[in-house]
Amino acid sequence: MSGGISFLQPGERLDDLQINNYKIIQNPQKFCFGMDAVLLSAFAVIRKGCNVLDLGTGTGILPLLLAAKTEAGHFDALEIQEEIASMAIRSVKLDHLEDKINIICGDICKASEIFGKGVFDTVTTNPPYMNNHHGLKNKKLPKAIARHEILCTLEDVIRESSLVLKEQGKLYMVHRPFRLAEIFSTLYKYRLEPKRMCFVHPFIDKEPNMVLIEAVKNGNPMIKIEPPVIVYDSPGIYTKRVLEIYGPDI
Amino acid sequence: MSGGISFLQPGERLDDLQINNYKIIQNPQKFCFGMDAVLLSAFAVIRKGCNVLDLGTGTGILPLLLAAKTEAGHFDALEIQEEIASMAIRSVKLDHLEDKINIICGDICKASEIFGKGVFDTVTTNPPYMNNHHGLKNKKLPKAIARHEILCTLEDVIRESSLVLKEQGKLYMVHRPFRLAEIFSTLYKYRLEPKRMCFVHPFIDKEPNMVLIEAVKNGNPMIKIEPPVIVYDSPGIYTKRVLEIYGPDI
Repeated sequence: MSGGISFLQPGERLDDLQINNYKIIQNPQKFCFGMDAVLLSAFAVIRKGCNVLDLGTGTGILPLLLAAKTEAGHFDALEIQEEIASMAIRSVKLDHLEDKINIICGDICKASEIFGKGVFDTVTTNPPYMNNHHGLKNKKLPKAIARHEILCTLEDVIRESSLVLKEQGKLYMVHRPFRLAEIFSTLYKYRLEPKRMCFVHPFIDKEPNMVLIEAVKNGNPMIKIEPPVIVYDSPGIYTKRVLEIYGPDI
Repeated sequence: MSGGISFLQPGERLDDLQINNYKIIQNPQKFCFGMDAVLLSAFAVIRKGCNVLDLGTGTGILPLLLAAKTEAGHFDALEIQEEIASMAIRSVKLDHLEDKINIICGDICKASEIFGKGVFDTVTTNPPYMNNHHGLKNKKLPKAIARHEILCTLEDVIRESSLVLKEQGKLYMVHRPFRLAEIFSTLYKYRLEPKRMCFVHPFIDKEPNMVLIEAVKNGNPMIKIEPPVIVYDSPGIYTKRVLEIYGPDI
């Protein structure tokens, strides 16, 4: 567009989020969102007017989806990788959400310094899953940083979540089930009580490959395990539940 | 049978376990085993020659099923209620398992005093689930004692399990999912690492009502969540998986 702002950098593409006509800028070489973020956005219960912090926002997928799906008041979203945060900032502009979503390039480990303590109603996070760096050829690659605990650990994410949350504030996290015991013990350490949990299985007879967790700061002990999300009825055929979450154009 | 031993007391009945021709004495007024114990017996992996302790054995259902299904070496089984332990003792006699299963009437809270520390390869337990005594009219009723934490708590069960287990010994427990966070934190406290977990849902779209857990004494952190067990395909119609566990005569 002559005279317009060039939103896309080389290698980037513009994807339609199929909701509110929102678009997101992604770069397949660097980072694209996955089903994890979409399922977390459907699992999170965010009340009207709440302020939300997304830790490790990537290209901003969680605040973008939650701005469309909920009546949250305001989102702050932290991303340590400059080039990824830049995509998120441009998507927010493109979607005219500058008043609603504030993308900050910064370190999760310092979230409570950046934002202050006890200030958020809700934290969302789709953090790096892998704590084993075996086989990683380049720890500086954007995808490696997004997937592996290179710049922050599970404990950093949970500690900072607890610090920035108000009393009874809620943390929504998606992670890998194999780390569940460690997740629970770390939540306990930082007084975040697991209250809801949902496993995501690719097929009904397969092990889950994701777990969605809601934890409440200083909540009472009692957890609700939800019916599992099964992704496929048969290879390539999504279940009704996943189609409801994604919409028909998945 | 004239001149024979009278195995049954008034109110008791003899049920066929549908395996090895084993029978079990139960009293519907006092205590009958449930699907919990059967599913735990299918979940537990017990190697040849292992010695096993069942904490809170009730009428002895777990050692009876596991004696039929595994090549375990020997079972000790602890039950605090005399009249329930008496049924278990008589079932063991009836099934000619006196050399294999030893039923002891005693207190879970003192298991490590009774049996010693670091002596078992495996502990199994289907403990009281409920920690809320609200509405309990008579805390001395056998069913109340079996279902509510009147004579022992979750922490007692886990502490004693850890004490009696050898290094790398395994605990198999069935419990209610709503207490999962507390279960995990208590397992951690006593250095029992959760390694396998399976939820049991009555229907695929319902919340689970049981959780099966394997924990290893001083095990490495990494948990495997198994595909869920779904009990019914439709009301009254068991799933193939449950039929496989129970056999066709359920």
